[in-house]
Amino acid sequence: MPSLHHHPLDPHSRFIRLVLNEIGLDVDLVEEKPWEREERFLHLNPAGLLPVLVEDGGLVVPGVSAIAEYLDEAHGAGLGEHRLLSLDTATRVETRRLADWFLTKFHAEVSDYLVTEKILKRFMPEDAGGGAPDTSAIRAAKTNVRYHLRYLGYLARRRNWLAGDRLSYADLAAAAQLSVVDYLGDVPWAEDDTAKDWYARIKSRPSFRPLLNEMVRGTTPSSTYANLDF
Amino acid sequence: MPSLHHHPLDPHSRFIRLVLNEIGLDVDLVEEKPWEREERFLHLNPAGLLPVLVEDGGLVVPGVSAIAEYLDEAHGAGLGEHRLLSLDTATRVETRRLADWFLTKFHAEVSDYLVTEKILKRFMPEDAGGGAPDTSAIRAAKTNVRYHLRYLGYLARRRNWLAGDRLSYADLAAAAQLSVVDYLGDVPWAEDDTAKDWYARIKSRPSFRPLLNEMVRGTTPSSTYANLDF
Repeated sequence: MPSLHHHPLDPHSRFIRLVLNEIGLDVDLVEEKPWEREERFLHLNPAGLLPVLVEDGGLVVPGVSAIAEYLDEAHGAGLGEHRLLSLDTATRVETRRLADWFLTKFHAEVSDYLVTEKILKRFMPEDAGGGAPDTSAIRAAKTNVRYHLRYLGYLARRRNWLAGDRLSYADLAAAAQLSVVDYLGDVPWAEDDTAKDWYARIKSRPSFRPLLNEMVRGTTPSSTYANLDF
Repeated sequence: MPSLHHHPLDPHSRFIRLVLNEIGLDVDLVEEKPWEREERFLHLNPAGLLPVLVEDGGLVVPGVSAIAEYLDEAHGAGLGEHRLLSLDTATRVETRRLADWFLTKFHAEVSDYLVTEKILKRFMPEDAGGGAPDTSAIRAAKTNVRYHLRYLGYLARRRNWLAGDRLSYADLAAAAQLSVVDYLGDVPWAEDDTAKDWYARIKSRPSFRPLLNEMVRGTTPSSTYANLDF
């Protein structure tokens, strides 16, 4: 069986897990602590980043974008109209733009700060950046998440799903990022009702279930995290 | 004619210009100052990032990765064995891994610091982040560039081009990033001879010429920048 090297609260890993679940591909999950910079892991991805997909034949696909493109190329055609990266050129461009928005911009402005400061720093040794959380980074992330939610709401008011008529990588990338922020209880859902409705639709999909049942040692998820009627 | 919204010292814009030149696609270049956050430009790319490709029919392709994937889909098949994203699965994965390495990691650790601190801050108003250069950021970038050069050398010793037998997006992404650092005179070429030889090969390609002839107001390029025998 292929394996996915991941971390439970890494939003990029969560995005690929949602994609795999939507496609219906089973993988062995291998939990990694990339900040330990183990030789074995750096051999899989010299950039030291999660996730990494290892195929049965030994093909190593490192990094979130390379995996998403690879999975579309390897399995997209078999999904027909459920393909997560549409064959229509303009929708394809929009899907990649929005997936990149959430995987890069939302990550840099919101989820990376929150996960690093609130969770990972506790497990990291001091020389790898561990220690007390930086409260100004947490404050910045909590401010930034508001305009991202409003942007989500703006998109969801214009379209059935974020990039068009059908569920796509854009929705799964956005939901994966939001899910870790929601785990920490830091999504101000009252900010935008349409964004909340869109997230409720994604959250109730079977592909999301495994993520909602997962716990990270030492951090209880927010009271509404696994609640489908939040 | 399609147009490419770019900035002369933005390495992501330079990557796409190299790709367009290699493919042989003419575009009108439209210079942008994304830090001014003009409504007109944010309409093209709400993320406010360069480059943005606008096709004749009006299709807007925003952001470096979306453009690279789009150009391969639209023109790759016509390039035959000169295709910049190989059809071979493993080479495709490796090309995307390395392109991402230089567009994301090298950019975050080296070129973004140098271009922002040494050039852009001079043109930016203070409330957009302008002002005196941060010398510690410049120092960090100058340290970081050394290990990236050694990694380039390591790759170039194993292969004809960075991702395999043929020139690919990986080479053009790496060369685009290095070219802005070289403009500023901050590439320690003595660090790795193989990396230097690889860059000399790229630099002498006709696709590179337009970049070497370009000057940025107020900043003279380093003495060896346009020299093919540096």
